[in-house]
Amino acid sequence: MALATAEQAQREDRQGIAAAVAELRARFGERCSVSHSVREHHGHTTTLLANQIPDAVVFAQSTEEVAEIVKICAAHRTPIIPFGAGTSLEGHINAPEGGVSVDLSQMNAVIKIFPEDLNCVVQPGITRMKLNEYLRDTGLFFPIDPGADASIGGMTATRASGTNAVRYGTMKDNVLALTAVMPDGSIVRTGSRAKKSSAGYDLTRLLIGSEGTLGIVTEITLRLQGIPEAISGGICPFPDVESACNAVIVTIQSGIPVARIELLDTLQVKACNAYSKLGLEEKPTLFLEFHGTKAGVAEQAEQFGEIAQEFGGGPFVWTDKAEDRSKLWQARHDAYWACLGLRPGSKSVTTDVCVPISRLAECVEATRADIDETGLIAPLIGHVGDGNFHVSILVDPEDEREIEAAHGFIERLNWRAIEMDGTCTGEHGVGQGKKKYLKREHGDALSVMWAIKQAIDPLNIMNPGKIIPM
Amino acid sequence: MALATAEQAQREDRQGIAAAVAELRARFGERCSVSHSVREHHGHTTTLLANQIPDAVVFAQSTEEVAEIVKICAAHRTPIIPFGAGTSLEGHINAPEGGVSVDLSQMNAVIKIFPEDLNCVVQPGITRMKLNEYLRDTGLFFPIDPGADASIGGMTATRASGTNAVRYGTMKDNVLALTAVMPDGSIVRTGSRAKKSSAGYDLTRLLIGSEGTLGIVTEITLRLQGIPEAISGGICPFPDVESACNAVIVTIQSGIPVARIELLDTLQVKACNAYSKLGLEEKPTLFLEFHGTKAGVAEQAEQFGEIAQEFGGGPFVWTDKAEDRSKLWQARHDAYWACLGLRPGSKSVTTDVCVPISRLAECVEATRADIDETGLIAPLIGHVGDGNFHVSILVDPEDEREIEAAHGFIERLNWRAIEMDGTCTGEHGVGQGKKKYLKREHGDALSVMWAIKQAIDPLNIMNPGKIIPM
Repeated sequence: MALATAEQAQREDRQGIAAAVAELRARFGERCSVSHSVREHHGHTTTLLANQIPDAVVFAQSTEEVAEIVKICAAHRTPIIPFGAGTSLEGHINAPEGGVSVDLSQMNAVIKIFPEDLNCVVQPGITRMKLNEYLRDTGLFFPIDPGADASIGGMTATRASGTNAVRYGTMKDNVLALTAVMPDGSIVRTGSRAKKSSAGYDLTRLLIGSEGTLGIVTEITLRLQGIPEAISGGICPFPDVESACNAVIVTIQSGIPVARIELLDTLQVKACNAYSKLGLEEKPTLFLEFHGTKAGVAEQAEQFGEIAQEFGGGPFVWTDKAEDRSKLWQARHDAYWACLGLRPGSKSVTTDVCVPISRLAECVEATRADIDETGLIAPLIGHVGDGNFHVSILVDPEDEREIEAAHGFIERLNWRAIEMDGTCTGEHGVGQGKKKYLKREHGDALSVMWAIKQAIDPLNIMNPGKIIPM
Repeated sequence: MALATAEQAQREDRQGIAAAVAELRARFGERCSVSHSVREHHGHTTTLLANQIPDAVVFAQSTEEVAEIVKICAAHRTPIIPFGAGTSLEGHINAPEGGVSVDLSQMNAVIKIFPEDLNCVVQPGITRMKLNEYLRDTGLFFPIDPGADASIGGMTATRASGTNAVRYGTMKDNVLALTAVMPDGSIVRTGSRAKKSSAGYDLTRLLIGSEGTLGIVTEITLRLQGIPEAISGGICPFPDVESACNAVIVTIQSGIPVARIELLDTLQVKACNAYSKLGLEEKPTLFLEFHGTKAGVAEQAEQFGEIAQEFGGGPFVWTDKAEDRSKLWQARHDAYWACLGLRPGSKSVTTDVCVPISRLAECVEATRADIDETGLIAPLIGHVGDGNFHVSILVDPEDEREIEAAHGFIERLNWRAIEMDGTCTGEHGVGQGKKKYLKREHGDALSVMWAIKQAIDPLNIMNPGKIIPM
């Protein structure tokens, strides 16, 4: 495109956005904000990606309102960026082309619980913790737990998972149906409350993980789980990462239905000891949880203990006391803060990859060696039952050389995972940060994704600049 | 379209198909058959749908060959109908517009097993029973078991499930990655061997259940399960269908990880008694199976027995002897033949629906009443842990009035399921038979499916006339 034409196109885009914002302000009044601080908050990223703020933020209160907003934006070819709790890690909520952030946090109701069916219908703005508080008296819970208190809508959009995924699956396994506003403003419902269906294309799974690039999810039907009769948890140190990973492999292979199995490397254990006063041996350590009947969890713990011993791990200390378990998992969930404590004043850059479990030890070892060679401070923690792990790189945000080193390391990590027949992200999503790895991971399948994007969002207004590097 | 133009278009289509077949015969020789009996076999349907035969059948032996076939067909706008084992139930393999049936049965290799990762890569033509025979010495098994010995490719295409789905999920949960030939002949790979990923659109799930309308699957990476340490099975009669369904609901709610829980209504029990010499009480009966440790399966059986008693069911007789269990499940899998035995000379028309489990008793009762009122002979059997059930209507294929009554009944059954927030097919797929229910089930989401179909297959050559009623 010639420069003059590009400039002209950009000017037209800006005029379109201005017209859309004016209409939205007229329609939504106070609920359409153009205040700089509100806009900045909505483009805020938890990483090193620059904050790219939207032109306006609209606080939606219903599916119909979202449809109205989308129609107004579509009429003016204005980008739309859905916003839940703002906890995403790869720049999903940034507005690289400006446009309108649609804040769904006020759509946070539990619409209905169906205890007999073990499912419920919620609005996207409710967070996972709020949902579980709401469910407390029903004997049911929603198991998916990314570290942050993310919104269910955001978790749907990024195909989130977390520590419980090894037993309960990810968002793709725990969403039955969706209501979504499509890029033309039409409202569609995908799936049903039936547990399974073979009736046509799986639009539910297509929208899960599409990061707001195909539509805005406004209602979600979630599978729920009965709170287990008994829960036990434990900790087991290992001489090295390899033996810990091998113990995980055999545990999974033996069909022990472990609910959580998390690896903390030595540096992460140090960090947690300092932050959460745990007093653990400073070795690669597995944190575990078992769900089942009282006899069942004891049996599982015993079986795991034997496997750990085979690989030189132990002592395996476990408990079914709720209080001790809570302390343990609080420490696990505080890992992010514990990391920052390793280097006060630093910023944590968190990345995740996922590999076949047989390649996990090799991938983790190579990654640890890479970190050491690069001279970065970067503890490693993982949902190892799924072959998924995170590295939190603690960087001085003012030190360009260090940031460059971090970027180089992340690039090598992602290539390593892809070459091991894994993926550049197990649960964080692509956003802006991981776009550059998709061609290597997906090859020609990327063209199929792009064809779908163009068919569903021909104006490219839904969260443009995310996922697909086209 | 004016008549002359329609006729001309059809003539051009026929000329295109003839040209494609000529090219395919030149390229594939003996492996491209135009024999009437081979073609008839490939359009054969297991239902009352008319046999619509393809113009030729090509027996493919590799992904690259499939790509060649697709390119030749695409160049001549010739319909392509993928064929696995021919066991589908809704006319999936029919050729309403003629064209080329691509028979994948010779692509039946297990490419690789990854025991540490609990997965394997197979070609689409292998059947589920052959795969499990192959796996026998590995301590692993593939759990998805539709009644017939379907091919893994066909099961992927229809999003199949079966009796084990209540514990192990459906094909959507058990396929990690696919290689597929797209409608332009390009070869793409979706997913990876990592257990989870958030890297872009879920093309794997989009292809699963797309019934060959978006591409031809040529390699499938499957999750496998460890063979449980102990398996126990049992039978439990109930006074009526409602109490049996209620026992199922409470069993699932209690988190008992039942591996199979199947309902046979009184007529089906009668049929199985006669066919498999079971000597069961002729009442609605649950067939169950538990997988776990020796202590675990005993505990599960005990818990279920208590629940059954609460609802007036029993005696619950269970065993962990492999021989007795096999007899039981052989009888379950022979249900189709047992049905035919109820009315020698009849043809069985089988249909399936799936509803939220809370609506199951109501749906089954209403369906039973409908059958009785219509005067049809139609036993009912179901994967009730998923809210999924089948009705096999035994019709005299020569009696038009009876066939009309069967069609009327099927239509009411499907509407009933959809109105209960269920689906018109839990596992058989849409094919030709269920197209007419999709608008009611999916509403405007059908337009999104159509947009995807058009984007990926703009020439509409991949299994045309299936799934989408456009």
